[in-house]
Amino acid sequence: MMEWIEGGVCAAEGFKAAGVEVGIKAGHEGKKDMAMIFSDADCVAAGTFTGNLVKAAPVKWDKRIVTESESVRAVLVNSGVANACTGEKGLKDCEQLAGKLTEVAGITRDEVLICSTGVIGATLPVEIMKSGIEQLVLKLENSKEAAQTAAQAIMTTDTVDKQAAVKFELNGKEVHIGGMCKGSGMIHINMCTMLGFITTDAAISKEMLQDALSETIPDTFNMVSVDGDTSTNDTVLLMANGLAGNPAIIEKNEDYLTFKKALREVCESLSKKIASDGEGATKLFEVKVIHAATKQDAVTLSKSIVTSSLTKAMVFGNDANSGRILCAMGYSGVIFDPEQVDVYIESEKGRLKIVENGMYADYSEEEATEILKTEAVTCIADVKMGMESATAWGCDLTYDYVKINADYRS
Amino acid sequence: MMEWIEGGVCAAEGFKAAGVEVGIKAGHEGKKDMAMIFSDADCVAAGTFTGNLVKAAPVKWDKRIVTESESVRAVLVNSGVANACTGEKGLKDCEQLAGKLTEVAGITRDEVLICSTGVIGATLPVEIMKSGIEQLVLKLENSKEAAQTAAQAIMTTDTVDKQAAVKFELNGKEVHIGGMCKGSGMIHINMCTMLGFITTDAAISKEMLQDALSETIPDTFNMVSVDGDTSTNDTVLLMANGLAGNPAIIEKNEDYLTFKKALREVCESLSKKIASDGEGATKLFEVKVIHAATKQDAVTLSKSIVTSSLTKAMVFGNDANSGRILCAMGYSGVIFDPEQVDVYIESEKGRLKIVENGMYADYSEEEATEILKTEAVTCIADVKMGMESATAWGCDLTYDYVKINADYRS
Repeated sequence: MMEWIEGGVCAAEGFKAAGVEVGIKAGHEGKKDMAMIFSDADCVAAGTFTGNLVKAAPVKWDKRIVTESESVRAVLVNSGVANACTGEKGLKDCEQLAGKLTEVAGITRDEVLICSTGVIGATLPVEIMKSGIEQLVLKLENSKEAAQTAAQAIMTTDTVDKQAAVKFELNGKEVHIGGMCKGSGMIHINMCTMLGFITTDAAISKEMLQDALSETIPDTFNMVSVDGDTSTNDTVLLMANGLAGNPAIIEKNEDYLTFKKALREVCESLSKKIASDGEGATKLFEVKVIHAATKQDAVTLSKSIVTSSLTKAMVFGNDANSGRILCAMGYSGVIFDPEQVDVYIESEKGRLKIVENGMYADYSEEEATEILKTEAVTCIADVKMGMESATAWGCDLTYDYVKINADYRS
Repeated sequence: MMEWIEGGVCAAEGFKAAGVEVGIKAGHEGKKDMAMIFSDADCVAAGTFTGNLVKAAPVKWDKRIVTESESVRAVLVNSGVANACTGEKGLKDCEQLAGKLTEVAGITRDEVLICSTGVIGATLPVEIMKSGIEQLVLKLENSKEAAQTAAQAIMTTDTVDKQAAVKFELNGKEVHIGGMCKGSGMIHINMCTMLGFITTDAAISKEMLQDALSETIPDTFNMVSVDGDTSTNDTVLLMANGLAGNPAIIEKNEDYLTFKKALREVCESLSKKIASDGEGATKLFEVKVIHAATKQDAVTLSKSIVTSSLTKAMVFGNDANSGRILCAMGYSGVIFDPEQVDVYIESEKGRLKIVENGMYADYSEEEATEILKTEAVTCIADVKMGMESATAWGCDLTYDYVKINADYRS
């Protein structure tokens, strides 16, 4: 059985972290802007990267390392400058940073992963960052404080640092998976990349590690509402150093499924933290589409509802303007029968059917408002077309900027 | 040669209009909520309707009338209630309203077009609206004042009424095309439908009229930024009563092209008015994509740039954060070579290349800011892939709600 624990990227044995401020973010004094994750033991690494045709230099760098390197030891992250749309120089800068880490930490250049987030088009202040690397190496520590410092250093417009960690057993051995991420939902994601870093002491082959990550991302990080935008830098990295001493996972056996289940919990927890941190968001907005004809239909419909300004405004306004949900489904491009759809809203306060067979269900507006007046609201759309389902996460729109939508019926 | 004139939907001979307040918008006293356009002579009608799978009752009604009726005389519009997701009752209500107009105006039910905009899910207050129809018929007038009253009565969250009209010659006869529309860009469009009404005294066959409209919409109304949202009620109606006395246009001859050119001017002018009226928008944001491989690529790329929160924020912040434009192009799904793209910004203040072959061009930030500090900004992206181009219209994002994006580099 799985247990939630503290420690983020330092929860797993043998992983150290650190965060420092070197001044990459002009005019943001007091904000840390460089972080490092370091493993005492060799790691196998897996990664998933942005689908944006325009890929930042660090994304190109990491793709090569993850594909070609047998072992990885460190991840270097900076916030403030994205090192995207920087051409050849961008890649040379990655090389220089990795080279510096080679000098001070005694690892090889091909064992270094690099991530950047911030302004697109600007180039990295490499010299400043080299001194930052020296400071980081001296600060490296395996502690929850160190993990938090690192989690803070990767923030851009995030209002809170985002971490999650679990422990569970594989063949009697205690195994840990911990992670941190950054990125705010909604508008923010346009400018601030979503970055996720997950560490584990599980013993697992590189191939199985990549499969576990690739099979988990579509239902977790990829289901966070981002207004359809994908940054040039989006990256999720997963490193496993094997120090838990469990029999290495080299095939899709029961241990693999146990590991993947724990990994999914960590990724889902981090994803929800990103969704809840949308600009000025007051609540987490979860959308479940059930009985869709295909998985893709379920994904498209749930994302269409969760990213619609008008459903978000409805959630913020605690106003069950049910037609808006059907409207968002209708323009998603998915084929379904609007006159068959049932829609429910749900929260700790209860559950209510607000649309029945495509029409306004006769419900109590008071009850609906009660249900919506909570910090986490779920909308369930039953399209009665098949057996597939999907869940997407977003947040509400705050008063200042959707005044008119939220107030429309008052 | 074509000349801009006043008069909106009353610019064309034989068209009367009116607007009244009957109290459909609860809590919005003083706001007109019903409008009518009436033609003294029989009209042929053309229409384009929402692509949303969920279609409002009036959309279903109008589709039938436009397809089946040889002649149309009146358009009845209400704001406040959309009559969408109202099932059979919604259509019966349309029938009743048309029936009332039959009584008081002596036209047949199949000569009445109906449009609604407002809250989805609610049903129309039919009895109140019947009295509204009586008032409207008494107020009908061919004057620019009457046209404006009608234009005001169809507004929901719009901040200004939107009209345009031109006159031109066909075979020595003076012909007029005038129109009005409602709908605000961005978030608003989620809840307030885009409605467009265009009248002309040109003599033209129903088939040619529909072709002219269908060929014009994709480059005009459909290129207004709506965050990918399509309302359940979106409708554009075009009526021609032939009173100009020009030789009827029954084939795609030179007169047809002249008529279509004038129609396009009116539609484009109305489209820009919708774009500029986005929530709190301070400027019109025009995006031209040139040298795309296909027309669809050009359309997709220009819409991706114009709807991207980060490019909109850039325009608002007068901050030429050029990488954001490449980022928005990159996630559009269109295949192009990011390292070949040039990007320019242009306004009455001048023109500046800010991206050259996919990289930050060495330009003066001061000059860029000067160019962006205007009420209408154009962004041109040259993808160097082919010969197709497209233009999309949107607006900037206002300070309150994209503070962080706009301020990011300061």
